[in-house]
Amino acid sequence: MNGKMIIYMLGKIAQLEAVIMLPSLICSIIYRENQVILAFAVTILLCLGVGLLLSLIGKPRDKVIFAKEGFVIVALAWIIMSALGALPFVISGEIPEFVDAFFETVSGFTTTGASILTNIEALSKGLLFWRSFTHWVGGVGVLVLVMAILVSDSGRTMHILRAEMPGPTVGKLLPRVKSTAKILYLIYIFLSALQVAFLLFGGMSLYESLIHMFGTAGTGGFSVNADSIASYSPYLQWVITIFMIIFGVNFNLYYFILAKRFKAVLKSEEFWVYLSVAFVSSGVIAVNIFNNIREMATVSDSIRHAAFQTASIMTTTGYATTDFNLWPTLSKTILLLLMFIGACAGSTAGGLKVSRVIMLFKSIKANLKHALHSRSVETVKFEGKPLDREMVSGVNGYLCIYVFCFAAIVVILGFDIFDFETNFSAAAACFNNVGPGFGFVGPAASYADYSVISKLTLSAAMLLGRLEIYPIILLFSPHIWTKKKVK
Amino acid sequence: MNGKMIIYMLGKIAQLEAVIMLPSLICSIIYRENQVILAFAVTILLCLGVGLLLSLIGKPRDKVIFAKEGFVIVALAWIIMSALGALPFVISGEIPEFVDAFFETVSGFTTTGASILTNIEALSKGLLFWRSFTHWVGGVGVLVLVMAILVSDSGRTMHILRAEMPGPTVGKLLPRVKSTAKILYLIYIFLSALQVAFLLFGGMSLYESLIHMFGTAGTGGFSVNADSIASYSPYLQWVITIFMIIFGVNFNLYYFILAKRFKAVLKSEEFWVYLSVAFVSSGVIAVNIFNNIREMATVSDSIRHAAFQTASIMTTTGYATTDFNLWPTLSKTILLLLMFIGACAGSTAGGLKVSRVIMLFKSIKANLKHALHSRSVETVKFEGKPLDREMVSGVNGYLCIYVFCFAAIVVILGFDIFDFETNFSAAAACFNNVGPGFGFVGPAASYADYSVISKLTLSAAMLLGRLEIYPIILLFSPHIWTKKKVK
Repeated sequence: MNGKMIIYMLGKIAQLEAVIMLPSLICSIIYRENQVILAFAVTILLCLGVGLLLSLIGKPRDKVIFAKEGFVIVALAWIIMSALGALPFVISGEIPEFVDAFFETVSGFTTTGASILTNIEALSKGLLFWRSFTHWVGGVGVLVLVMAILVSDSGRTMHILRAEMPGPTVGKLLPRVKSTAKILYLIYIFLSALQVAFLLFGGMSLYESLIHMFGTAGTGGFSVNADSIASYSPYLQWVITIFMIIFGVNFNLYYFILAKRFKAVLKSEEFWVYLSVAFVSSGVIAVNIFNNIREMATVSDSIRHAAFQTASIMTTTGYATTDFNLWPTLSKTILLLLMFIGACAGSTAGGLKVSRVIMLFKSIKANLKHALHSRSVETVKFEGKPLDREMVSGVNGYLCIYVFCFAAIVVILGFDIFDFETNFSAAAACFNNVGPGFGFVGPAASYADYSVISKLTLSAAMLLGRLEIYPIILLFSPHIWTKKKVK
Repeated sequence: MNGKMIIYMLGKIAQLEAVIMLPSLICSIIYRENQVILAFAVTILLCLGVGLLLSLIGKPRDKVIFAKEGFVIVALAWIIMSALGALPFVISGEIPEFVDAFFETVSGFTTTGASILTNIEALSKGLLFWRSFTHWVGGVGVLVLVMAILVSDSGRTMHILRAEMPGPTVGKLLPRVKSTAKILYLIYIFLSALQVAFLLFGGMSLYESLIHMFGTAGTGGFSVNADSIASYSPYLQWVITIFMIIFGVNFNLYYFILAKRFKAVLKSEEFWVYLSVAFVSSGVIAVNIFNNIREMATVSDSIRHAAFQTASIMTTTGYATTDFNLWPTLSKTILLLLMFIGACAGSTAGGLKVSRVIMLFKSIKANLKHALHSRSVETVKFEGKPLDREMVSGVNGYLCIYVFCFAAIVVILGFDIFDFETNFSAAAACFNNVGPGFGFVGPAASYADYSVISKLTLSAAMLLGRLEIYPIILLFSPHIWTKKKVK
């Protein structure tokens, strides 16, 4: 275990956090929120201090790291980012309890959007900006940023990227990690800017445009309004719907578009399944709510709300144009299912990812054939290429650990005061990085009334979901802390 | 596809059904229930007629069957048994709707115990006897009976046994299938008789002793009282608790005891995990209900109710000594989890089975190690023997299809009028062959208010769960109906 390298990297991350806090500091200066300016200034100095100290202590001679170190760095980085990122809320006194602030910041960085705030509008503009900005940073993954900016040698950092990027099908777009990270980063910035332009055009203020772009791009879901997106015009709601869908697409496809490989885009199995699921779900929900919900006066209203909520939940964003907790059971069940499916691999979304669901489906088909003809060896194809056994068993294994983690979270929440539907949906919404659930954690409510233990459990759930389980679990594995070096 | 052999076997099964209906006919003669006597007589004649006709039509020249035919026979056998078994309810007019009677009989044969009856005590004694007797017959599996009685050649029937027996670890106890089936059958009868003796000793009438033995031995859960086991003495409740646990043990272990291989019993991993889970769950629930439920006046009451419900749910029996739907969320969540775990493989219980859960856990551990050292190949051991990749990927694949089926059932139930908790627990209770769920399908309620489509879906869920998914799904696969013969 290359401990020095881990400490060194964590030091760099603390320094990075100081840098990414600057826009929020500037925002609070613009709005002259003195308390908040002080809170940010103190935190930034602390981050710089701790960061410099760690990177001095850790200054590694040996820069080689393996999967082991990669997992540890990723897991600890997200925890430390969140712990440091929680400080401005606590220092300013706007979220006095550290556990609450930590929950909120984990929710930000993991692009979940679950909130313990009961009165969002009471928060200062600077802190609301910071809260949403963590979504944007979390979106492509802090570590991709770290690599793109801080690390110059290629190869060495591939293990981190593997642990970091969501989904099973992250191809190396280009051989050099740094370039890969930079391209993803540029696509992300371009799409973000495009969305801001569309929102400004619809009459949204620059501040709110930025906030909602952060929430959309990171598929996070923090807003500045208690009613989320409900009070905005249909135009703005549609813009956000479409951009949620856009940010749920595998970023490889945008790279293919840049490289003019349009055929690769059109032939993407995951892309079409993703769009089809979104389309069918919207349709069923639109009919269901039009027939059952009195406020859905017109067909176009029903379609808009159905499409918005479908996109919001499937991309694990979590914005709401209406309190879908009041919707009929069918719509709620479909939304719950979409939470687990999630959007495309290689996007900023959470959940199982469409590609994984497709592979699981295909492995079921292969297993059924195998049950009939025990000697037949069925090859599972995905995106035109045959999947090897290793990949299939990897995906099956992931579902297995996913189900066990989810069950454990629901049982621990059982110790709290809420009903089963609330706990189940809270676990689903946090583990899949969606945000709002049903019952007492619906879009019109918050996670405020959960106990400290439940909040920590849900924070862990968000991290588990965001980092695809392994890094966080391995952090508690004795194997990772043993001295023996692996070749 | 050996179609003649399938028809022949189904004919034999219809004849068998006529035979197993005789005790119920005798029961209704004893209690002089004329309507019911007539209903049974008509059904028995019908079964014999259809049975003889089918076995004449099907009279096979070629008696060889493969996995394909095995799956088809098993799936169709259970459906036909249930359809014919529903007739006495309909003909007597006591359950006038066929769908309801079918649901009730599927629930009986699959040893689920879910009921659409709102007033159980209004039913005639003969029909209540039949309803519970289906549990007992379903318990060891109709097909094991069929084989033990009707089929004389060995080897040929192994495919049916494989499709039939619950759980992944059914060893061949003896090389000849017929002998295996007979031994299981004798152990089952012995334990059943033992339980009846204990119940009679506690002052239960012979009729009720038989009914509750049927429900316990088959891990079914039909009772003759609206309040299930609640009004019986603590002694009787404890007797049922212990026998539920006994019938949840892998029957191989009883064979080992007969063969004086005590070490094999003591070293059984599954057995100890099964007992530990039951013990720990009972303990947590006992504390939880003692602190929260006012009726739990004494510690011993809490322990009795907790142990009873734990045993009842984990063995997927479904009896109740109290309305556990009113228990706190923690207890309900644990019970729900136990529904999915189930009892041991090779027992009469449903659910995933303890051995499968252990294997899944071990494969997770192996996957975690693999994530760290991608070149290490971890062997997973179970019951002292290393599991091959085939077995591990089989179990992982089973979880995968299990999760997808479960999600599909919950979504279809979403079209009905109930809330999410009710639907989720109804799906869990039927798919795992438990019986009562929570909410509107709790132990004090029934499945009566579900729509026809939901009742058919839940009937399918019970069959899927009982036959471990594959046979039922394959029935709808085009591959199975193609002419091409597989070698």
